[in-house]
Amino acid sequence: MNDTKRRILIIGGVAAGMKVASRARRLDPGAEITVLERGARVSYGACALPYYVEGLFEELDEVMQTPAGVLRDPGFFRRVKGFDVRTRTEALGIDRENRRVRVRDLESEAELELPYDRLVLATGNRPVMPEVPGIDLAGVHPLKSPEDAEALMSLVGAERRAVIVGGGLIGLEMAEALVARGMEVTLVEMKDQVLASALDFGMAALVHRELRKNGINLRLGEAVQRLEGTDGRVQRVVTCGGSYGAGLVLMAVGVRPVVDLAREAGLEIGPTGAIAVDQRMCTSDPEIFAAGDCVESVDLLTGRKVYVPLGSTANKQGRVTADNLCGRQERFPGILGSLIVKVFGLNVARTGLSEEDAQLLGYQPVTMLAPSPDRAHIYPGARPVVIKLVADGASRRLLGAQIVGSGAVDKRIDTVVAALSLGATADQLAQLDLAYAPPFSSAMDPLIQAANALRNKLDGLGASLDPVALRQLREKGEDFILLDVRSPAEHAEVRIPGAMLLPLGALRERLVELPRDRTIVPFCKLSLRGYEAQRILQAAGFEQVQYLEGGILGWPYELETGAPRTAEAFQGA
Amino acid sequence: MNDTKRRILIIGGVAAGMKVASRARRLDPGAEITVLERGARVSYGACALPYYVEGLFEELDEVMQTPAGVLRDPGFFRRVKGFDVRTRTEALGIDRENRRVRVRDLESEAELELPYDRLVLATGNRPVMPEVPGIDLAGVHPLKSPEDAEALMSLVGAERRAVIVGGGLIGLEMAEALVARGMEVTLVEMKDQVLASALDFGMAALVHRELRKNGINLRLGEAVQRLEGTDGRVQRVVTCGGSYGAGLVLMAVGVRPVVDLAREAGLEIGPTGAIAVDQRMCTSDPEIFAAGDCVESVDLLTGRKVYVPLGSTANKQGRVTADNLCGRQERFPGILGSLIVKVFGLNVARTGLSEEDAQLLGYQPVTMLAPSPDRAHIYPGARPVVIKLVADGASRRLLGAQIVGSGAVDKRIDTVVAALSLGATADQLAQLDLAYAPPFSSAMDPLIQAANALRNKLDGLGASLDPVALRQLREKGEDFILLDVRSPAEHAEVRIPGAMLLPLGALRERLVELPRDRTIVPFCKLSLRGYEAQRILQAAGFEQVQYLEGGILGWPYELETGAPRTAEAFQGA
Repeated sequence: MNDTKRRILIIGGVAAGMKVASRARRLDPGAEITVLERGARVSYGACALPYYVEGLFEELDEVMQTPAGVLRDPGFFRRVKGFDVRTRTEALGIDRENRRVRVRDLESEAELELPYDRLVLATGNRPVMPEVPGIDLAGVHPLKSPEDAEALMSLVGAERRAVIVGGGLIGLEMAEALVARGMEVTLVEMKDQVLASALDFGMAALVHRELRKNGINLRLGEAVQRLEGTDGRVQRVVTCGGSYGAGLVLMAVGVRPVVDLAREAGLEIGPTGAIAVDQRMCTSDPEIFAAGDCVESVDLLTGRKVYVPLGSTANKQGRVTADNLCGRQERFPGILGSLIVKVFGLNVARTGLSEEDAQLLGYQPVTMLAPSPDRAHIYPGARPVVIKLVADGASRRLLGAQIVGSGAVDKRIDTVVAALSLGATADQLAQLDLAYAPPFSSAMDPLIQAANALRNKLDGLGASLDPVALRQLREKGEDFILLDVRSPAEHAEVRIPGAMLLPLGALRERLVELPRDRTIVPFCKLSLRGYEAQRILQAAGFEQVQYLEGGILGWPYELETGAPRTAEAFQGA
Repeated sequence: MNDTKRRILIIGGVAAGMKVASRARRLDPGAEITVLERGARVSYGACALPYYVEGLFEELDEVMQTPAGVLRDPGFFRRVKGFDVRTRTEALGIDRENRRVRVRDLESEAELELPYDRLVLATGNRPVMPEVPGIDLAGVHPLKSPEDAEALMSLVGAERRAVIVGGGLIGLEMAEALVARGMEVTLVEMKDQVLASALDFGMAALVHRELRKNGINLRLGEAVQRLEGTDGRVQRVVTCGGSYGAGLVLMAVGVRPVVDLAREAGLEIGPTGAIAVDQRMCTSDPEIFAAGDCVESVDLLTGRKVYVPLGSTANKQGRVTADNLCGRQERFPGILGSLIVKVFGLNVARTGLSEEDAQLLGYQPVTMLAPSPDRAHIYPGARPVVIKLVADGASRRLLGAQIVGSGAVDKRIDTVVAALSLGATADQLAQLDLAYAPPFSSAMDPLIQAANALRNKLDGLGASLDPVALRQLREKGEDFILLDVRSPAEHAEVRIPGAMLLPLGALRERLVELPRDRTIVPFCKLSLRGYEAQRILQAAGFEQVQYLEGGILGWPYELETGAPRTAEAFQGA
């Protein structure tokens, strides 16, 4: 093959496929590189489609432009990148023995065979359309392609009410987009929380509050039974819990890898249902590689196969694929399941294992919920970030993080991603020399505060429980005193129902007022004074004290803002 | 000591001292803890003082408030934190043999001796006031204490012109603050760049442009010779290069650790001039610990002793100190010299070794300068970050990063800090599963793009040079063609002087127009098309091709915006 031009054929012209082609061209100037794309457009950023619907940019072509504003069309790729792109060209089958792909030109309907030395499958994913009655009604769409986005846009102006089915990334992004477009939005999710595979319940509950605050009719724990309409147009969505009028229905219940070609060609399909590849991105056929949303990845922490389709992963895999195609040795190690999504005023991110994941996998997770302002509290614009860290109790190694808040969530999650990837313990996270100045952070960064709180818990200094655990105690009817150690002014502003006020500054001198035979759960706005109170009470011989992690800012349930119980009321309690 | 109360005496009540006291109280409820502070205020955030002068908050007391708005005064610490703070109390000497500190009450002038079981020195730093004539004139101040800030504030309203001496963190922050206050500001720096110990020249030059753009009269390479005034008030600053009128002079040439007590008590002073401590924060006397701006740290990468006083480090060291005081085993591993500063519209950050550091230390550094938008270019508000990575050419390990730009610089530097702390290579950085969504990042995060560009260079795929190296070539009179491969429209808008236009899309077909016997330096806006052009030219047999790292966005020298040379002009060249 060194004497002749290497023929590289790539099926799929969105993220991974185009990355493979571009990099392969740079690595091997002599290769003959062809990309086949069934659709009319190549190299579009599917992740940008919700923002198009939201109206953040005018022309759909912008999602296919380079940062310098040049449209990425076949002519661009020929002239600038030096390879061929054939749009509206569908791959019909792979003849592995003769190294040929049978294709159909969707314009002319002509079929032909294209030879390859190396084949790359970058066939992407397709949205799941559940088999419920009415799914084929007009007005019901997924959001996957630019064509879907155009279809949704045409409805946005004409309809008043929308139902989104599915509380994953696309569902949440589109909830915001459709509200921004003036629609009344119902979001239906079968599970009892949004982002169910990504967040623990307590963190998702913070997102629920944000959705409701922004007018979303959030219907959790409801499965769609059917879609109803008249004259072939959708008019309502019927679930096990209600019926919701809608002229636009977005189906966003998930995606599946497109593996038809691979399966028919006898390539190995992995346990997740996506194409199985090794670290070189090679399939079970040494001449065929695969990358992007059609392949499964390895979870870096657990070694398990996982399916998490994302543009960021597709680009990394595309690079590795090109290297291996062109004789270099490169490996894609795997992923952490990192996600981030903007939901109205909240930034929501996660990486690694959730608490629930960790429990299911047999770890003994120790978690910490710790909110902080994202920069020095004196600096204008400081906003909260609520951090949940998950560590292994035995080894103290970090296992994961979930971060939610209106502040700089993305910064902290990426710092955790780096730490987690390199095997950091909670102790190492706490010692990072993060860059500090008041416009960017506090002297103890929120992440370092969270890591220190976690270390205190691991060391037995901090006894605490999180809001979900507290709620469970309450529901079981267990006896405890929820002790608000903030100031009377803070207490008057907003509080957790049933909490009693005893400001931290008065705690040492008023210990006699507290019963020693009941569990005491002190809390504050963040968690710092709550922890301080716990240490004071324990030092004074109180044996059953656990501060409430997360304080007011991490409390995902209802808060009270009316006339407060006074300190006097508490004295009489 | 287990049977009696442990007496912990702490000298210094700002960051480290207060952290030691608070944590020690939580760890040891029985300890007798006293903090001595010479000033009238404790626990103030010195880092916040420039923002007070800028007018971002109204009351100086705010820098001493908790995030919940409670003033941190001695009463607060007694009631809430449970330890004593004695302000206006100066430590005069340490009697190590008898474990006593002689102190003076600055109000009553009374002297007394205080016993200790464990002593902590948290004596902080003091600003350097250079011994030049006129340094004692009224109107000349450092910025270290709240009193300094008050003094500067009283001049801000009364004076029109200010001179800042020193282009370090305080000098830069105050330049912005004084301009915001309507003053005409001259900044005098002895070296040929600002942030000389932190940034390589090319990165500092981006800061120089920002300073000048905001009206700062920036005088580099000028040493102050004297201050002149009349009636005891300063009127001008005279340097080797000029004379600058000023009714306010801020001396910000650096700080020195306050080690007088430690030195007089015979404690070991380290090579940096700060108090020597081990990883437990213990001085050469096992009963005496020290933390914060009076001690030296270890550079995590080189193992060298360094002096980098910062509030973030002080807090970490305070925690470690308290643990060891109270019988726990804790270690402070060291620092990376991470810094961040906001300079008008630029965020400026660094960590680890600069290229210059790495060369001096005998590494064979390979660097990469790579700018990117900080989020998906289609998402509103995307802004550039210019990343310089430094890696060891032999091991491919990351050594440091410098990041400058109006975008989310802080996020990327902290991610590098985590990676660097845990020994990551450039390859590992490039594979991080950073969280991606268009509002926060691009499918290939700027950091991953920079790491990949660095890997290409390490692998011999990318041949490149940075703007400083290019400038040197030009100054040596070397012959090369600077080739702008952007579009004609981009070229017309802004360009590097002397560059010739040949858009990337036309490059493949117009190769014959380029001479094969001259060095060709292609560039674009970022670095991507420049690299692409380099690969195309090399593939076509051009042997002397190096793309310009950083492109237009990383170019720190003058740019041209008038009538451009046309492609035709180039054809004739």
